[in-house]
Amino acid sequence: MKVAIIGGGAAGMSAASRVKALRPNWDVKVFEKSRWVSHAPCGIPFFVGGAVEKFDELCAYDIDYFKRERGIDVHTNARVVEIEEGRLTVDEGGKEASYEWDKLLFATGSKAVRLNVEGENLEGVIYVDDIENAERVKIEAMKVDNVVVVGSGYIGVEMADAITRLGKNVTVIEVMERPLPEYDAEIAAIIKSEMEKYVNLRLSEKVTAFEGKDRVEKVVTNKGEYPCELAIIAVGVAPNTDLAKGFVELGVKGAIRTNSRMETSRENVYAAGDCAESINIVTGREDWIPLAAPANKMGYVAGVNMAGLEMHYPGSLKSQLTGFKDIEIGKAGLSENEAIRFGYEVVSAFITSRTSARYLPGGLIHLKVVADRNGKLLGLQAVGKDVAMRVYAASALLHKNGDVKDLFFCDFPYYPPVSRVWDPLVVAARNIFRKLGLP
Amino acid sequence: MKVAIIGGGAAGMSAASRVKALRPNWDVKVFEKSRWVSHAPCGIPFFVGGAVEKFDELCAYDIDYFKRERGIDVHTNARVVEIEEGRLTVDEGGKEASYEWDKLLFATGSKAVRLNVEGENLEGVIYVDDIENAERVKIEAMKVDNVVVVGSGYIGVEMADAITRLGKNVTVIEVMERPLPEYDAEIAAIIKSEMEKYVNLRLSEKVTAFEGKDRVEKVVTNKGEYPCELAIIAVGVAPNTDLAKGFVELGVKGAIRTNSRMETSRENVYAAGDCAESINIVTGREDWIPLAAPANKMGYVAGVNMAGLEMHYPGSLKSQLTGFKDIEIGKAGLSENEAIRFGYEVVSAFITSRTSARYLPGGLIHLKVVADRNGKLLGLQAVGKDVAMRVYAASALLHKNGDVKDLFFCDFPYYPPVSRVWDPLVVAARNIFRKLGLP
Repeated sequence: MKVAIIGGGAAGMSAASRVKALRPNWDVKVFEKSRWVSHAPCGIPFFVGGAVEKFDELCAYDIDYFKRERGIDVHTNARVVEIEEGRLTVDEGGKEASYEWDKLLFATGSKAVRLNVEGENLEGVIYVDDIENAERVKIEAMKVDNVVVVGSGYIGVEMADAITRLGKNVTVIEVMERPLPEYDAEIAAIIKSEMEKYVNLRLSEKVTAFEGKDRVEKVVTNKGEYPCELAIIAVGVAPNTDLAKGFVELGVKGAIRTNSRMETSRENVYAAGDCAESINIVTGREDWIPLAAPANKMGYVAGVNMAGLEMHYPGSLKSQLTGFKDIEIGKAGLSENEAIRFGYEVVSAFITSRTSARYLPGGLIHLKVVADRNGKLLGLQAVGKDVAMRVYAASALLHKNGDVKDLFFCDFPYYPPVSRVWDPLVVAARNIFRKLGLP
Repeated sequence: MKVAIIGGGAAGMSAASRVKALRPNWDVKVFEKSRWVSHAPCGIPFFVGGAVEKFDELCAYDIDYFKRERGIDVHTNARVVEIEEGRLTVDEGGKEASYEWDKLLFATGSKAVRLNVEGENLEGVIYVDDIENAERVKIEAMKVDNVVVVGSGYIGVEMADAITRLGKNVTVIEVMERPLPEYDAEIAAIIKSEMEKYVNLRLSEKVTAFEGKDRVEKVVTNKGEYPCELAIIAVGVAPNTDLAKGFVELGVKGAIRTNSRMETSRENVYAAGDCAESINIVTGREDWIPLAAPANKMGYVAGVNMAGLEMHYPGSLKSQLTGFKDIEIGKAGLSENEAIRFGYEVVSAFITSRTSARYLPGGLIHLKVVADRNGKLLGLQAVGKDVAMRVYAASALLHKNGDVKDLFFCDFPYYPPVSRVWDPLVVAARNIFRKLGLP
């Protein structure tokens, strides 16, 4: 059997590894357009900020490992240019080659959304879309004094954090009225005030142009101008489905339509990772959730099914963790705004609590729990200290379709340095009890 | 309505608060034999080790708060000496008083198991059973050089940690072959090697006597003698049911039999906290789980039901977190040994993993997942770094009766400093997949 996998990121390498583990004699080829496989874009801000010294460290495994240890035929600098039934054409460093396939996987990832404004092709304007841009960002950031980051989603926030660590002046420009706009206002307000200690945060401003002679000299918005020698753009991503379009059906937000076996509309063709649609476990509906952990698992499931066995991907929760300086930030499931948009009648609780017993130092956590009128949990957002453990717990309860009683009664252990006898999650649940008229 | 609550610890004050919140006009009396209410024995090691300066800080709220803010009639130094239907007799600082009750709650907690060996009443031999002993332990520990801790359950381990922080020589004597004997051998081995860096850890040794003239001078075991000026005994606890015996039925391990409304065998009489039986959610059977967080929730549920409303306590998981020096230690559900004892056919995975992306500092976590042959999750044990978030997550999945597929597919978020794209929990789940023949 000949298996062809387009894309050597998380999903692609995960699937390739799975197929080879289950079918050691099958021919598994991966075509990756960059020089890297199993690259870890989530690590880019840590490389830029200096926590990681060498770029190569960001790749989980090197190519030789996959070839030698796992028997995967990895082709790098290999851009797939055409796909037909049973065959694909690849540009490998300028030379075209053709390969046959019996089973095909799209693992083509996502691509940066473009601003489409004047001057965005100037030197010194960089989209953080490609793993290879990470090196450019770092080299350029080291040389300059003033950096503008356009966008304050996860990547924008982490990039802003990283670049201030290099001692640079950072301006962050966000078109929405708050940073990390997927979070509700209460949580975003805390993130905002933390960010404002370190960066010039410009909210509700729309970038209209980049200006400069040889290279960028300023970023222009509908409200002002921001001189800079480097502009980094991170205004979101979209599924990278240029190759798939017309060959398989597309679904939510243009991602490749899949079922729970990661099968596309065409027989023997699969999709996984950031290019693929999946299920949002909270809503039960198709969604597009381009994140690393789900991508790996989708790849795993695709690999199992491509190998002829059966496994179903249940979907994900869009669980996320990030940080800015001293605060951790996390979310699982839906914000209140998102829940309302999906048509839920919502109750929510926003609380601030110490994370430790009051006689120990600890810190503060702010968290918001969102539920529907029947008490079904819809989501958690948190910011502050010891956020990860609460987002992990909420992810588990959301995964199991839990309700606020589960959140209240779940036996979260008490240990004075990191938790409380009434955990902040439990306090929030009790708060919702009251709103639902429970005793 | 007259409500009498025996015991002003976590469960008692929780129940009293709940009743007053729901029935502000009811007369709610709490009888507490010590000077303290809402005391936090979990904080004792932090007080002894010096992280908490003043003993008073260990009490979550002071008595005035409960009286003034919550309208609870708190009686301290009030030892209940006799209970009859509708009436109880209390020794209040030497004077006997009698009170009527319409509803009664036992919240009498637990008491230290005695060694029953010679010399245990010598000066300098202290049982860590009573909140008031915490002050004695600290005062004595400050004065001496050599301390023996008998027992290496949670309290013993935390006490040993605390006393080494005071710069004292500590010997820990454990009758079982490993410290924290509720953990399986793989996990305990790591705890053992950490403890051995700081204390003289004597395993499989049984204390036979305490010897000394005016006060303790040595601890004698079946294998040796350990000179010391202070011996602290923490060899377990038992339900404190002296008062309840004969008045209501007792159940597992002598704890007061209760149903999910925390009702005892006698009408209008409830029990909650360390003196009460409850359900072990993993096994679905009656169990005795004397821990702070469950005690508070049992008290809450008892309070709701005493107030005439309805709420059911689902039971708990015996989730626990503790630490020794630089390692966190945690457990939820059953160990492999416990699972076998309960009759399960067990599969398990023990793994060691980094807790962060490999390009960031992070640390190591060792974890063991236990499941049955159908993949149902039975328990998690972990030791190392970032343990709390994994124990929280496992507690949530165990609470919802999850299986290893849930553990694998649960959308735990990836953030390079604190987690991995394949979280250690997910790696352990995959490991169990293999043992169950899943792809």
